[in-house]
Amino acid sequence: MNTHPIEVIAQQSRLAARRLAAAPEAMRNLALAKMADALESVKTQVLKMNALEIIKARDEGQAEAMVKRLTIDDKTFSYMLSRLKKVAQLPDPLDRILTGHTNPNGLRVYKKSVPLGVIGIIYESRPNVTTDAAGVCIKSGNAVILRGGSEALLTNTLLTDAMIAGAVDAGLPEHAIQIIRAPGHEAVGELLKMDDYIDVLIPRGGKSLIKRIAEGTRIPVIKHYDGICHLYIAADANPEQAVAIAVNSKCQSVQVCNALETLLVDSQCAARLLPLLQTAFGLNNIELRGCAETQKLLPGLAPAAEDDWHTEYLAPILSVKIVDGIEEAITHINRYGSGHTDGIATQSLNMARQFEQQVDSASVMINASTRLSGGGDYGLGSVVGISTDKLHVRGPVGPDELTTYKWVAYGDGHLRC
Amino acid sequence: MNTHPIEVIAQQSRLAARRLAAAPEAMRNLALAKMADALESVKTQVLKMNALEIIKARDEGQAEAMVKRLTIDDKTFSYMLSRLKKVAQLPDPLDRILTGHTNPNGLRVYKKSVPLGVIGIIYESRPNVTTDAAGVCIKSGNAVILRGGSEALLTNTLLTDAMIAGAVDAGLPEHAIQIIRAPGHEAVGELLKMDDYIDVLIPRGGKSLIKRIAEGTRIPVIKHYDGICHLYIAADANPEQAVAIAVNSKCQSVQVCNALETLLVDSQCAARLLPLLQTAFGLNNIELRGCAETQKLLPGLAPAAEDDWHTEYLAPILSVKIVDGIEEAITHINRYGSGHTDGIATQSLNMARQFEQQVDSASVMINASTRLSGGGDYGLGSVVGISTDKLHVRGPVGPDELTTYKWVAYGDGHLRC
Repeated sequence: MNTHPIEVIAQQSRLAARRLAAAPEAMRNLALAKMADALESVKTQVLKMNALEIIKARDEGQAEAMVKRLTIDDKTFSYMLSRLKKVAQLPDPLDRILTGHTNPNGLRVYKKSVPLGVIGIIYESRPNVTTDAAGVCIKSGNAVILRGGSEALLTNTLLTDAMIAGAVDAGLPEHAIQIIRAPGHEAVGELLKMDDYIDVLIPRGGKSLIKRIAEGTRIPVIKHYDGICHLYIAADANPEQAVAIAVNSKCQSVQVCNALETLLVDSQCAARLLPLLQTAFGLNNIELRGCAETQKLLPGLAPAAEDDWHTEYLAPILSVKIVDGIEEAITHINRYGSGHTDGIATQSLNMARQFEQQVDSASVMINASTRLSGGGDYGLGSVVGISTDKLHVRGPVGPDELTTYKWVAYGDGHLRC
Repeated sequence: MNTHPIEVIAQQSRLAARRLAAAPEAMRNLALAKMADALESVKTQVLKMNALEIIKARDEGQAEAMVKRLTIDDKTFSYMLSRLKKVAQLPDPLDRILTGHTNPNGLRVYKKSVPLGVIGIIYESRPNVTTDAAGVCIKSGNAVILRGGSEALLTNTLLTDAMIAGAVDAGLPEHAIQIIRAPGHEAVGELLKMDDYIDVLIPRGGKSLIKRIAEGTRIPVIKHYDGICHLYIAADANPEQAVAIAVNSKCQSVQVCNALETLLVDSQCAARLLPLLQTAFGLNNIELRGCAETQKLLPGLAPAAEDDWHTEYLAPILSVKIVDGIEEAITHINRYGSGHTDGIATQSLNMARQFEQQVDSASVMINASTRLSGGGDYGLGSVVGISTDKLHVRGPVGPDELTTYKWVAYGDGHLRC
């Protein structure tokens, strides 16, 4: 029986992972520097190849939003390299002693961080995922198998080949970074079966992609579903600040997971604030949909139905609901939210505390834009995704989150009585 | 449409979890103390009920090993209470600031530990799981839904009712601890569908139970599969110590997950050590099965076939293999082991380091019995299980491991540029 090519790749990654786990910090950081250098040296080819794939995508009638995500320009390219360099500067996520003690009988026990092993990244269009993911995986001593979208296959392959050359030059194993070059869905199907070799899969893309992968594999999947983000404006919020936070949360970018989808306004300040909010959102071409109470205060507003509270618009639409106090706001968020990012605008320390404690979300923002949740402001340097799961990792997935740990016990002939 | 009784229980737990997450440390610790007191006050009834269920189990022809696991005697009972008191003394697993910083723009960010939410524990026979699991869950601010085996249903129900009374007396919500009283498989089937309310399931029992649960639910499952544990005796090991560790690892208890299943002996010390090992294991009535090389040195030994290396005997049988050096030992362990607990006997610091680094297991023991891996010696106080997964928790599952975290950002009108 012939081994399937994908199984060969998975086996190679598993072997590389064992060697990577033993690669010292200096070697992994050198590899990241050399990966950036190697990418710099193929910049012209990458931009040329990317331009060809953009033409092809347009020829095939792809949506302009997708073409935009596919595009690498000078600025994107520099940003990709700077992220590799930045991740190199982060503290080593490996070999951290997480806890430890010596038992009265002299048995020394500690728990230390180690790589997960082999990480599979399945993603759509954005070629910067190729370099971001490889960087975070190498930093954390993990082998990575990349599988980007077919529309960017040639660009991603060029990027990966350069990074492999850089990594090998630094002394890392050849298969520390691999990319699946075979086009078509069959390769992904095979990849999902590789639970003997792959420790975790991180799909990046639309909800349907993530669902399909999570349901089609026994490999643990770090999932990113909806970002149904809320801002609750409490009665005592600074009005100017609250409006600015609401507008920034919604308008700074509408197609992203930490953009605002539902605004909750306290009934005690609704009459004062809603007209200001309507004006501000109007200037930004955002369509407001309101609950019945909101409609009373803003006549002519489209209604928000039950479905709206469940919807991640990813579009210039915002649902608005008037709530009676913080309890109702928290109940609404925990019921309709997706546990991604939810914020409050308030001047009350007590309310901030209550919101922080009772809102069951990966990120809780106090008087700050929901758009600030993420690896950058959280100091993670670079991330391979965002988790809406609660187990293992919640929120941004950086190098620390791609580690597990082992317990080590040093005895001198210690036995169990 | 009527709501299924299991769904009512799950919903109640979800609501209780929200209140529990806000219960201060003092209240949770008081609850643990009061739970122990309440159990003490029903001790006579518990032992009586347990005795009846033991008679019933024997009448139904249950295996004696199962009856033994079912039994609560004075000593077991005291041990159950002492574990509740011990877990109360542990540091609070909640509200730990795991990382934090203030950005140059003044945005203050931190990551703090919070409960997972609702934990479902599905287990067989041992009634001490009832109190251990409830203790660890309450300590970590999680609501718990217990589902024990039908053979211990009445004993478990008595234990649970006492614990609920104690917890409520301390101010915790009534549904912080619940037990599923309905007999039969249908209840478990329903429980597996409660992914809207339950955050994680921890099955405790045989491999088939765990597999059935993991494959039948969308709820994340903390799994404990095989414990195929190894000891590698290096050429330079202290012979007396190595034999003692091997014997203790295998014989101290054979039916447990961290008992030795395969002994790897370095070819350079095999001729010296194997006869000593044979004598020692013979005295403990352990059947040895050897590789071809072992058979040459110990004529008459039964052969160990390929299957043996894959087998968790949980019985007085031990497979023995001669290996050429530490590399072969590590390769064998990573190939055939289950990543549970693996040890080395050596006097070489370099070999200890290499083994620690390259063996991909939850627990690595250096000159210590494999039987020492676990919550007790690791200082976890009390555990609800052991994980052979790599994500979220690896090895013993104590209070810290039943937490997740959230990111909190405090701003003063901070926006994204």
